Amino acid sequence: MARPHVLIIGCGFGGIEAVRALSKAEVEITLVDRTNHHLFQPLLYQVATAGLSAPAVSAPIRHVLRPEMKRGNLTILKAEVQAIDVAGHTATLDGGERIEWDHLIVAAGATHSYFGHDDWARYAPGLKTLADAFDIRARVIGAFENAERAQDDATRDAWMTFVVIGAGPTGVEMAGTMSEIAQHTLSREFRRIDSRATRVILLEGSDRVLGAFVTKQSQQARQQLERLHVEVRTGSKVTGIDAEGVSFETTASGAPTTQRLACRTVIWAAGVAGSRLGAELARGSGAALDRAGRVVVEPDLSLAGHPEISVVGDLAAAKSHGKGEPKPVPGVSPAAKQMGRAAAANVLRRIEREPTTPFRYIDYGNLATVGRKAAVVDLAVPGLGALRFSGLAAWLFWLFAHIYFLIGFRNRLIVMVDWAWAYFTYERSARVVAEPERPPPARGS
Amino acid sequence: MARPHVLIIGCGFGGIEAVRALSKAEVEITLVDRTNHHLFQPLLYQVATAGLSAPAVSAPIRHVLRPEMKRGNLTILKAEVQAIDVAGHTATLDGGERIEWDHLIVAAGATHSYFGHDDWARYAPGLKTLADAFDIRARVIGAFENAERAQDDATRDAWMTFVVIGAGPTGVEMAGTMSEIAQHTLSREFRRIDSRATRVILLEGSDRVLGAFVTKQSQQARQQLERLHVEVRTGSKVTGIDAEGVSFETTASGAPTTQRLACRTVIWAAGVAGSRLGAELARGSGAALDRAGRVVVEPDLSLAGHPEISVVGDLAAAKSHGKGEPKPVPGVSPAAKQMGRAAAANVLRRIEREPTTPFRYIDYGNLATVGRKAAVVDLAVPGLGALRFSGLAAWLFWLFAHIYFLIGFRNRLIVMVDWAWAYFTYERSARVVAEPERPPPARGS
Repeated sequence: MARPHVLIIGCGFGGIEAVRALSKAEVEITLVDRTNHHLFQPLLYQVATAGLSAPAVSAPIRHVLRPEMKRGNLTILKAEVQAIDVAGHTATLDGGERIEWDHLIVAAGATHSYFGHDDWARYAPGLKTLADAFDIRARVIGAFENAERAQDDATRDAWMTFVVIGAGPTGVEMAGTMSEIAQHTLSREFRRIDSRATRVILLEGSDRVLGAFVTKQSQQARQQLERLHVEVRTGSKVTGIDAEGVSFETTASGAPTTQRLACRTVIWAAGVAGSRLGAELARGSGAALDRAGRVVVEPDLSLAGHPEISVVGDLAAAKSHGKGEPKPVPGVSPAAKQMGRAAAANVLRRIEREPTTPFRYIDYGNLATVGRKAAVVDLAVPGLGALRFSGLAAWLFWLFAHIYFLIGFRNRLIVMVDWAWAYFTYERSARVVAEPERPPPARGS
Repeated sequence: MARPHVLIIGCGFGGIEAVRALSKAEVEITLVDRTNHHLFQPLLYQVATAGLSAPAVSAPIRHVLRPEMKRGNLTILKAEVQAIDVAGHTATLDGGERIEWDHLIVAAGATHSYFGHDDWARYAPGLKTLADAFDIRARVIGAFENAERAQDDATRDAWMTFVVIGAGPTGVEMAGTMSEIAQHTLSREFRRIDSRATRVILLEGSDRVLGAFVTKQSQQARQQLERLHVEVRTGSKVTGIDAEGVSFETTASGAPTTQRLACRTVIWAAGVAGSRLGAELARGSGAALDRAGRVVVEPDLSLAGHPEISVVGDLAAAKSHGKGEPKPVPGVSPAAKQMGRAAAANVLRRIEREPTTPFRYIDYGNLATVGRKAAVVDLAVPGLGALRFSGLAAWLFWLFAHIYFLIGFRNRLIVMVDWAWAYFTYERSARVVAEPERPPPARGS
């Protein structure tokens, strides 16, 4: 009998771990991703803020999975999944190729959500892919260049005003780092402008930054941001974004008022939504989607009525089944990894006709960096409870944790060199923007 | 009296050296470039072949010129020059801004020339900018991905056939490196294809590769290429390029015959032409353009009848005025640097109302790399004549020379780490392609 065929869609943390867990088993695996690389998303903001090059935080999927390739049961295809036929057990790729599967693990991740205002996307890019990071890098660096060229004060000020929307980990990192660039990296590189006069404004709808942390740590993060010259405006709900600026409703001073910031560079770090394939799965299987477009899964990460399909990572609205009430699983990389492994183990159990196991998320804690020497850490130490600290110690902890989990020895080395360099010189090593468009070829005779 | 204003267009090797030479003088300098970076073009092929990241071979102009910025007489503008008014001594930037100048140094470089076949450009990109390098990287890496997905042999073979047109230094580097990728880097990473069956074909119109070297070294380079599994076809003139392949007329076996190669990836390394601004200058000043669209300059690098305008680097059709007959200056980076310094010195002489000096190119020799442990070196040793060697020694010489001349200490360090890594593992560290297009934002509710 042919070995069961497992199709895995997506090569983020969840997909990679699922492949690893399955590659030793008697199954045939096909991994499909629309890119050629695995991305270490926790450091993507460093690519966007010109601190690291793209190859430092990403690696070719084929290279990452070389040990698994050697086992002879893994096929990797760079392709976009166009459609999933739940009843027919097939997926259709761009180009029309169809793949039949016995088991399906969907790890297609999330994308930005503009809460129904898709027209904001062109003014306020989010940060999920390398292409996003290059786009943001070009905007941030280009803004200072445009400020240097500005012919009047209002235009200059608008180019020197940066707004970050959403004070989760990505928004906080982006705001802190952009302020560092303005205050230090660029401080002596312009002639007509003083980059230290740059304003970086962080808008947050709720009443504190880093809502996943305890209130005290949110306060610490806010203080650290303010020390880095970031203007933090909590209780501020964005109502409009256009080429000239951002409008928002704020309750900071009591009654709600509408305010307007003239700015030319806006970063969206507010909302995420499950990838398009979530809706595709829901249509075919009858599974529910939550408000963020994530697929509601059973305790074992499979779809209700379709045990042959699992969803893991940011695309899954999953619950952790430990002691006590089931708790929602957060959209962080350790959770994606654990879900990838758990779904793979359940696939193997199903093949062996054993009962599957409910997913239990082991939470080791939460890290967020704010900027140079500034971070907050909330560790869950087994048997001891929470260990919380902030500032320099937290920043060093964050640094080493991220280097440790980075893909590949070479990348760790390169990132360490780049960070040491940045620490001592304030210089950012990847402040390079590719030419926007190709000039037409010259007509040599 | 106001200090004389020198406008420098272009921030390649020529422009940078002109800025450096002028910054100590009592002049006001404006440097305009359409990008934000200085590019170390001799290593650009490494970005295209995924050996190095873009930030390893380029650096922000503002960072490179930080010492000069400190002197207080340099303004750097990231802008595209739209027009040059020769009589009116002004240049118009994109956005309409006009810059008046007393002296103008144009160092705008060269671009690809398709010899009147501009329709070939979309099938056969050339390599001049970071954007070009990313484009080629995506095509080369994508070709293997597409071969793995091919549904029939003919399609698979076409994706596994790479044609490089033009056997100058860039064509030779590209062909040798692409073959190394196929033979080594990717050799165990695919399941349906054997990347070692890849064909890399180097087409050259003349009868030998590396025409700037002596015949014996051309032969050595050809042997080195063939050892790296590159098929070298000299005497082959391209007559057509389309999405399915390349047609060429060959005299290799006597009478000219037309042949056709089915291939999906073509690299253009055959022709260069002066940038658009050369034609603009010629129109305004009456200066002549040579066949490659380069501006014919006077012995002191100025334009005939317009001593206030100089052209340097790849855009100049200049001659070296040493002993004996004036000789054409080659389009290499040491020549661009020397021209940049010479033009700057002549600007200062003109300001002092002293006679200008004819340009003399000091030729230190010629290097070209073929691939791993393969290169040719032709050094001009003063008093000794030519010192020529090839193979491993030449490769090591090439390696250290390029690291030595690379921009910035950090870049040297990073490139050394990457090359040492590549040498021992055959892995290429930048095999990462950004996502081709941004998916539309998801509609979270």
